[in-house]
Amino acid sequence: MNFCSQCGSTVRFDIPEDDTRPRHICNSCGVIHYINPKVIAGCLPVYEDKVLLCKRAIEPRNGYWTLPAGFMENGESTRNAATRETLEEANARVSNLQLYTITSLVPVSQVQLIYLAQLDDLNFSAGDETEDVQLFSEEDIPWKELAFQTIRNALKFYFEDRKEGKFPMRHVDLETPAGQYVDKSIQSI
Amino acid sequence: MNFCSQCGSTVRFDIPEDDTRPRHICNSCGVIHYINPKVIAGCLPVYEDKVLLCKRAIEPRNGYWTLPAGFMENGESTRNAATRETLEEANARVSNLQLYTITSLVPVSQVQLIYLAQLDDLNFSAGDETEDVQLFSEEDIPWKELAFQTIRNALKFYFEDRKEGKFPMRHVDLETPAGQYVDKSIQSI
Ligand SMILES: [Zn+2]
Ligand SMILES: [Zn+2]
Repeated sequence: MNFCSQCGSTVRFDIPEDDTRPRHICNSCGVIHYINPKVIAGCLPVYEDKVLLCKRAIEPRNGYWTLPAGFMENGESTRNAATRETLEEANARVSNLQLYTITSLVPVSQVQLIYLAQLDDLNFSAGDETEDVQLFSEEDIPWKELAFQTIRNALKFYFEDRKEGKFPMRHVDLETPAGQYVDKSIQSI
Repeated sequence: MNFCSQCGSTVRFDIPEDDTRPRHICNSCGVIHYINPKVIAGCLPVYEDKVLLCKRAIEPRNGYWTLPAGFMENGESTRNAATRETLEEANARVSNLQLYTITSLVPVSQVQLIYLAQLDDLNFSAGDETEDVQLFSEEDIPWKELAFQTIRNALKFYFEDRKEGKFPMRHVDLETPAGQYVDKSIQSI
């Protein structure tokens, strides 16, 4: 950030009065510009014994498989964001959303929520940011071609939990850029 | 937003190519400025049969009681944010955090996470944004002087759940500015 989005003047990076962290402060109008983590919401859509994955047609991780997920927009709930992203990326309708994983991606300042969901029908297809959409059985999951550690975690949790028939929420903190998660940070309720 | 924070030129509010929503787009450098929901994290600190509340010394809702909570910062996990806010607002140390409520505050584009937590000791005191900090028994909770609907919900859930000795996570969507929540949106797992 170089300029104030309110008045167009230059900003300095300094600790405001009554604060403990440096912020972008306008040199003219004095407004403080806060930069906060972003929320990503998505679904793990299940149909019979299969799960739905999307092959990414955009960077990052172009060509790798992921769950339908994306940035939450203003004016929507996290559940609506997850449903909307599933519709946009896979033209797929889901229901019975249940929060399944919440992950803090600390190095990139993101919080990712993945909902376990029922895929309503088979009329799915690739959206604009997607190259391909397919249902996968456990034995066909392309583990080495998954886009993100969070997606790998969600799928791993799902196939483990399915054996027990219980799907407790998992709370994970990813502290390292490489994406190895810290085991002790997992809260399962 | 009136000016581009990258180059200082004017922005227009228009739907970018390959998008479905209007965004602030720079008329000079073309960068798209996304505005996304913010995450608020906090704790419901419990000590024996009492819970810790803070009397707000800042707007909004100056003088009303709340749980220690605030905006998540870049570079921290949601749990770290909840712990940090509890330390900043109440000079209180907590442990054994368990995600208890997740609320989408749709009209203000916020996602609030409240963790049930154990208050470690009684050496708490008012932080800079707090007028008073006290432990309250259920019968002494100032229900009519609580700052926010989300705080009322968390406390209501807590005292209900305490009778059963089980504290399932609650997932609430608040769709109206007045803050009445939609009952069917509550997911309890
Ligand atoms: Zn300014
Ligand atoms: Zn610009």
